[in-house]
Amino acid sequence: MTTLLTDPVGLASGLIRCPSVTPDDAGAIGLLAGWLERLGFTCHVICSATGGPAIQNLYARRGTAGPNFCFAGHTDVVPPGAGWTIDPFAGQVMNGRLYGRGAVDMKGAIAAFVAAIARRGDNADSVSLLITGDEEGPAVDGTVKVLDWLTAKGETLDACVVGEPTNPARLGDMLKIGRRGSMNTRITVTGTQGHVAYPHLADNPIPRLLEMLRRLTAEPLDHGSPLFQPSTLALTTIDVGNPATNVIPAQARAAFNIRFNDLHSSASLEEWIRRTVAEIGGDYDCSIEVSGESFLTQPGPLSAAVSDAVQRITGLRPEFSTSGGTSDARFIKNHCPVLEFGLINQTMHKVDEHVALSDLEQLTEIYQAVLDRFFEAE
Amino acid sequence: MTTLLTDPVGLASGLIRCPSVTPDDAGAIGLLAGWLERLGFTCHVICSATGGPAIQNLYARRGTAGPNFCFAGHTDVVPPGAGWTIDPFAGQVMNGRLYGRGAVDMKGAIAAFVAAIARRGDNADSVSLLITGDEEGPAVDGTVKVLDWLTAKGETLDACVVGEPTNPARLGDMLKIGRRGSMNTRITVTGTQGHVAYPHLADNPIPRLLEMLRRLTAEPLDHGSPLFQPSTLALTTIDVGNPATNVIPAQARAAFNIRFNDLHSSASLEEWIRRTVAEIGGDYDCSIEVSGESFLTQPGPLSAAVSDAVQRITGLRPEFSTSGGTSDARFIKNHCPVLEFGLINQTMHKVDEHVALSDLEQLTEIYQAVLDRFFEAE
Ligand SMILES: [Zn+2]
Ligand SMILES: [Zn+2]
Repeated sequence: MTTLLTDPVGLASGLIRCPSVTPDDAGAIGLLAGWLERLGFTCHVICSATGGPAIQNLYARRGTAGPNFCFAGHTDVVPPGAGWTIDPFAGQVMNGRLYGRGAVDMKGAIAAFVAAIARRGDNADSVSLLITGDEEGPAVDGTVKVLDWLTAKGETLDACVVGEPTNPARLGDMLKIGRRGSMNTRITVTGTQGHVAYPHLADNPIPRLLEMLRRLTAEPLDHGSPLFQPSTLALTTIDVGNPATNVIPAQARAAFNIRFNDLHSSASLEEWIRRTVAEIGGDYDCSIEVSGESFLTQPGPLSAAVSDAVQRITGLRPEFSTSGGTSDARFIKNHCPVLEFGLINQTMHKVDEHVALSDLEQLTEIYQAVLDRFFEAE
Repeated sequence: MTTLLTDPVGLASGLIRCPSVTPDDAGAIGLLAGWLERLGFTCHVICSATGGPAIQNLYARRGTAGPNFCFAGHTDVVPPGAGWTIDPFAGQVMNGRLYGRGAVDMKGAIAAFVAAIARRGDNADSVSLLITGDEEGPAVDGTVKVLDWLTAKGETLDACVVGEPTNPARLGDMLKIGRRGSMNTRITVTGTQGHVAYPHLADNPIPRLLEMLRRLTAEPLDHGSPLFQPSTLALTTIDVGNPATNVIPAQARAAFNIRFNDLHSSASLEEWIRRTVAEIGGDYDCSIEVSGESFLTQPGPLSAAVSDAVQRITGLRPEFSTSGGTSDARFIKNHCPVLEFGLINQTMHKVDEHVALSDLEQLTEIYQAVLDRFFEAE
């Protein structure tokens, strides 16, 4: 086994040098597949284009025996934005840190997957990588399409760790064992335009919309559950767009996002939303789009394996958390137990994103220990 | 006296043929001045341009003795809009009606002013016309500028009838003896942008804005006063403009208009608005613009003269009202007692605006009777 394959820094830097801002691949999937083939993986590039540009995804597996342990992640990154003090796509190391867009979210973790597998040497264990190029984008041509492909091929996953950056401050702080669900609602209330001096001849849609929103936000959705934060409803916009100070407008629109825990389902919330707005009534439209249900991988063998590995390498017992935004774990949870553990998320999506080389090394050791424990336990 | 001068239809039709959509004069003021000069009036065209196009206004007077009775109105019209079944600027008569933009609001009434004066023949009574080309627009280069000019010249008005269309259904229904005040408020609430998954790290300005609006609209402003309708608060717009469903926005804006009666002043309302929004607090801006205070010309000799004239000609005793939008009477009331009486307002600002020729004739007779009574009473 060469040093190059067991050291995560080289691959992480190489991946950063591919400016793979969603939906561009910029060579990232090919670079990764090349390394995996040298480790004996069989690689499948799965392309998908749903009305937009084609996205490249990768499913790579080594070994044929069960169980099949899967590392999942994404090679795409969010745009760098302005204000960097260093080239975001140079993959440079300075003062013990690797800089660049994707350093922590999550090219660094992908490199740690590969280096951990390389360090375990040749063996018969089935290990796979499910890597998408569409996680930061609409996520319709990414992980869901690879999972469909796996199902069609009769390929099963038995356990999965997603390498998203989960740690708020120190490597080992936090392990994500589930996520809240997310849904978006848009309400459009239609009234009758008129002159402000004759409000009885008009039907102002704004007070009706505001009363709907007041009822929807009057009480907290819940106070949290044992492993989840309280659900939240965030009003994201209200728009009328009426520039005339003497005109009562004909229409008013609002949108809100709900992040919900395991005390609700999108169906129970939709029923509540539709009942509440119907109490106000009149002419309105209410459209609801579900991004994902809440899910929880119950504490068990997989979380024990990851948690023990983290503690052995870092000395920290990670908190089991279900906080934060959505990730592709919401799709994978329909196939096998899934957890998320990766780097420190402080600089993700920010300028001068970077990872400490010592964190990259420790994460590699953690992933290696996870594999050791997972296959020992079998 | 020629038939042409005593018949309002000719002048009304001629004025409609001038497409004097604010701020264009399109020859309307000159046409009117020509007719008035034939009746012995001295005409002053008063131009004003406050940062926009120049507006033409007219002050015309015949007679030097006091008192000076003034007819007031405007030659400008709102745009015709789409959907007319007849040319809006042709001034055509069909089936006993004169059609066109401005037929009732208020070129017809201006023609009735002129015909009424013509029918009274030559006499020493002081009669004046105060006509603006900026009533339907911002009204900054119109009646206020003519009133300033009158003040500068030492010219006084002793009583005024504004010829705005005041009658909801039949000529003689309604005499306006005052108007509610009007003021516009804009509130901008500033928070801190953030991700909907982490609402505790953001400060959503929308709930704060909605709570301000809820408190401002929780109770009616009043239940009306003896000669006024209840005051009203109409929310005219709310705008955030956030297209992202996963982002809590940084700013939210709302605007509302208040029409207020004589139980309030703009100062008392401003104090209440500022106190109410300050209860919610945080980072916000509240700007208030007063369009006009409420006013009332107390029932007295002028209203008796107009009311008696209306009843004698139409058989109807007009209701004394303070309802409806603002008019230039809000400026004139600082100079002399002012009332409003004109045509039927059913088609004003609408497609196929028209006036019945019989109404135009009766309005002329009413204005003539008003002048007769006013000068008899002296
Ligand atoms: Zn990510
Ligand atoms: Zn008018």
